[in-house]
Amino acid sequence: MNLNFMIVAIILVWIMVPGIAVFYSGFVPQKDVNRILFNSFLMFGLAGLLWIVVGFSVSFEGNFLGIIGNFKHLFLNGIDLSSTYGTTGLPNSIYLLFQMMFAILTPALFLGAVASRARIKFIILFVVCWSLLIYYPLAHTVWSASGFLAKLGVLDFAGGTVIHIDAGITAMILAITLRKPYEYNNEQAKGNSMWILMGTVLLWIGWYGFNAGSALRLNTQAINAFFTTTVAACSALMTWVVLEDIFKSKVSISGICTGSICGLVGITPGAGYVTVFGSFIIGIITAIGSFYFMNYLKYKLHLNDYLDIFGCHGVGGIIGSLSVGLFATKSVNSTVITNGLFYGGGLKLLGLQFTGTIFTIVFVSVLSIIIITILSKLFKNDVGVKRIIK
Amino acid sequence: MNLNFMIVAIILVWIMVPGIAVFYSGFVPQKDVNRILFNSFLMFGLAGLLWIVVGFSVSFEGNFLGIIGNFKHLFLNGIDLSSTYGTTGLPNSIYLLFQMMFAILTPALFLGAVASRARIKFIILFVVCWSLLIYYPLAHTVWSASGFLAKLGVLDFAGGTVIHIDAGITAMILAITLRKPYEYNNEQAKGNSMWILMGTVLLWIGWYGFNAGSALRLNTQAINAFFTTTVAACSALMTWVVLEDIFKSKVSISGICTGSICGLVGITPGAGYVTVFGSFIIGIITAIGSFYFMNYLKYKLHLNDYLDIFGCHGVGGIIGSLSVGLFATKSVNSTVITNGLFYGGGLKLLGLQFTGTIFTIVFVSVLSIIIITILSKLFKNDVGVKRIIK
Amino acid sequence: MNLNFMIVAIILVWIMVPGIAVFYSGFVPQKDVNRILFNSFLMFGLAGLLWIVVGFSVSFEGNFLGIIGNFKHLFLNGIDLSSTYGTTGLPNSIYLLFQMMFAILTPALFLGAVASRARIKFIILFVVCWSLLIYYPLAHTVWSASGFLAKLGVLDFAGGTVIHIDAGITAMILAITLRKPYEYNNEQAKGNSMWILMGTVLLWIGWYGFNAGSALRLNTQAINAFFTTTVAACSALMTWVVLEDIFKSKVSISGICTGSICGLVGITPGAGYVTVFGSFIIGIITAIGSFYFMNYLKYKLHLNDYLDIFGCHGVGGIIGSLSVGLFATKSVNSTVITNGLFYGGGLKLLGLQFTGTIFTIVFVSVLSIIIITILSKLFKNDVGVKRIIK
Repeated sequence: MNLNFMIVAIILVWIMVPGIAVFYSGFVPQKDVNRILFNSFLMFGLAGLLWIVVGFSVSFEGNFLGIIGNFKHLFLNGIDLSSTYGTTGLPNSIYLLFQMMFAILTPALFLGAVASRARIKFIILFVVCWSLLIYYPLAHTVWSASGFLAKLGVLDFAGGTVIHIDAGITAMILAITLRKPYEYNNEQAKGNSMWILMGTVLLWIGWYGFNAGSALRLNTQAINAFFTTTVAACSALMTWVVLEDIFKSKVSISGICTGSICGLVGITPGAGYVTVFGSFIIGIITAIGSFYFMNYLKYKLHLNDYLDIFGCHGVGGIIGSLSVGLFATKSVNSTVITNGLFYGGGLKLLGLQFTGTIFTIVFVSVLSIIIITILSKLFKNDVGVKRIIK
Repeated sequence: MNLNFMIVAIILVWIMVPGIAVFYSGFVPQKDVNRILFNSFLMFGLAGLLWIVVGFSVSFEGNFLGIIGNFKHLFLNGIDLSSTYGTTGLPNSIYLLFQMMFAILTPALFLGAVASRARIKFIILFVVCWSLLIYYPLAHTVWSASGFLAKLGVLDFAGGTVIHIDAGITAMILAITLRKPYEYNNEQAKGNSMWILMGTVLLWIGWYGFNAGSALRLNTQAINAFFTTTVAACSALMTWVVLEDIFKSKVSISGICTGSICGLVGITPGAGYVTVFGSFIIGIITAIGSFYFMNYLKYKLHLNDYLDIFGCHGVGGIIGSLSVGLFATKSVNSTVITNGLFYGGGLKLLGLQFTGTIFTIVFVSVLSIIIITILSKLFKNDVGVKRIIK
Repeated sequence: MNLNFMIVAIILVWIMVPGIAVFYSGFVPQKDVNRILFNSFLMFGLAGLLWIVVGFSVSFEGNFLGIIGNFKHLFLNGIDLSSTYGTTGLPNSIYLLFQMMFAILTPALFLGAVASRARIKFIILFVVCWSLLIYYPLAHTVWSASGFLAKLGVLDFAGGTVIHIDAGITAMILAITLRKPYEYNNEQAKGNSMWILMGTVLLWIGWYGFNAGSALRLNTQAINAFFTTTVAACSALMTWVVLEDIFKSKVSISGICTGSICGLVGITPGAGYVTVFGSFIIGIITAIGSFYFMNYLKYKLHLNDYLDIFGCHGVGGIIGSLSVGLFATKSVNSTVITNGLFYGGGLKLLGLQFTGTIFTIVFVSVLSIIIITILSKLFKNDVGVKRIIK
């Protein structure tokens, strides 16, 4: 039963990779569409094979100081694919493939910020470095039983930190440091609503595999995640309609699509920890936060958040991650050590979530700036760190 | 096993909502595409949340006179999501989510008739009233064990009455009463065949969840529904090709897509009650009926059935619902009380199906006219009942 | 559990039919899009119903000389749909539907070569003859327990011969014998990258059902096929990027999509027989072979392989089929009689695979030329065999 469930989940997360490509391509001028699609789809080959060659071993086999695994199983050497991984009850092969899809998806999320602003060779080198230095450690930290954030008790059901905050921060730093400017912004681009919708469709259904599948088995938590994912997306969608009506006096298909994606990001870290009511509220506050950032704060801060990647994944991921500290409850998931603030658990969990969130932000920021600094020696015309302080 | 099956079914029905939006958008001029997409996708937020807040309780909890449930479980209050719903063997959460997708889909089906002909506020209010006064009672009547049509023995496996006849009639009444005319018709619109096909793809695969999932478990009836759904779609498709070749001397991709959708509508009420041969014939006669209506009868009757919503869902739903009275057989489904006419059961079942069909047509017609009459006080420029008699 | 798995697999293979239509339509001029879509989607009705009426009986019931079944079960007459088919453990209905999707998909693969170059009546007659004389016998030969290639020990996990080599050869012969020339070629066509990507998405996810589903149950082989399918697609994709960079100094989205499809074709015959490492290599060599054919050999041989159907399915199918003779291993699948060359089994399996491949090429070539010769009497303006020798 769990195998069926996980195979469907893997296919669904697979779908999110072209999903984000199609979604982004709905917002960019025609001339950038091919590169948007290329960058994302390339990740199947690049990040996918890298995961098999290095990633799985480094993220999930062994442990060094709680932040990284070991290099003993490069090329899956010595891994019996059909024996069970840890306490998951799943064969190594299935767990590896499920995790592989996330390792492919996350770079696809932030590469929207690159589009045709850098050469493909830069993208390839950047993604390799980013995978080795940022993604694999973060995945180990949160999802490996021996990861230090996991041990602390920080909760991240399906990847609010590892995937969404990570992608949001990386996108922001790339957006700033790439030399070639975007020649458009969201205000100018009319958007191709058909593709925006189609991208949203692929992302939303993919998210069911992403969130429910993160239970790793078809149990009560998986069903809870399935339900809360639906409700958060719906409530964020409606919130966005109301906000657009009030503050922009014009509702739009691109708006409700963006809204529902923000809700999906927001519920990701808490999907298996919060109640349906919790997810309803999380959908609303994530939508408000992302809407505020996308329409006001980013202009105030002069941040060029092209395609609103940080506004959606960064802001949504941060709000979602902190919300777990408010809404998580043992009644939904008995593995929660202490209830969230609103369920009588005091500030302890919120503190932990805050720690995890800040750690992720700092870790990703510092390392991605380091990677870019190094790569800027090789790709002077593509990227430059000086642009960060302007 | 059944949980896996139902989770896939829920996702598949989910897909039908953007599916119908994409399908309709292939038939309308570019300027209307955004509204078509918006109206449908909005239903996730609007009809989705309304289902959780009111719908499930009113449709499926308790019973009043066989036509409605109670209001005791608003906001899911007092519902233990993990305990089993009725005799379904499914947790409340899964049954609720499966039904939620239908409550979202049905308004998306008829909103094609609105497109940009009315303000969004009208759409929101109309859908709220329609859900409360038409959809929830109808769902209770047919699918709740205590519903009066269910008790009579009227058969509707997956929603021929509640969903398709309902949507077809509502679409027709909206098409007539909305003041702003459609500025195009099917003859003028060339159609964007890529989107028509893509919409058909989403609808057809979604229909597997819709029809097979309506067995609520992966049993013989579910497999039968899976098979009959396939065959009816295929036979309707081929029938449409033959009809177009004979009567229009020109076959088309939009034609075979429309044909297959009509076949899918036609098999919906009988999917778990008829044999493969039965479904083959039902596909043919539904295609003939819908083809005749769309190409001749609607012009004769001066009905402006934009996007052929009534022609497909209304005509197809009626033919399909009556066909159950002809083709249902205990050999497929032992819960059938009496065989259909062609299987030696006499006219009894046909009479019951006729009753159910007429009841649905009258109920939906009367209540939607009442709703529109009331709303026309608030939305004078959008809608007017007088237009019905012209 | 297996039923859930197979129902998902059936739906996934279903998706490949519109998938190939959408993929092809991304490469042809706008004027040909409707016909490309029509030809493929028509197969649901034509090849689908024909499968039920004749195909299943002729392919899988009874045996005559190891190359064909019998005609005793036309219209499924005498088949109890709920009893088990052979040793599959699946009800006849599910096995029949799974196989039905392949019988629909295969003509859709080669009809890209026809597009609008022949009348629809020709297409209908050709597909009927091709199904009866080529596809059903081939399916019997390889997949029926009493088929002579199966008995010889030729391995074809998911249809490298029956489906891909078959489709590739048929496409090539149609491309040559149709009188009306294609008015474009791949070099001219810029391609619509959105649709190429979307087609690839539908094909790739469909392939999971195609390859993993061919295990007919969710066992170790199915999981292995799931894994090897992923890896071969990824490695072919990356190989294509490298080849395009070296030989065309320009990478492209259409290129990586084509590359991944070639990898998927290549792994099809071996998916359940080779290791993950084997699939990695198979992806690479298939990509190299198809790339060489598409960019050099077809021009040298003056073959008009429109849409690169032979280059992808023919070349990829042949390489994949022979690769089984190199990489198959009992450690993955104990039903393998003798290991492949690289796993110490000597040349025996390679010889068998060579036999199966050559048989398929000759059988399909000869019979499709015979069919075309006969049909050319009826469709003089559409097709002519003389064009083969020019």
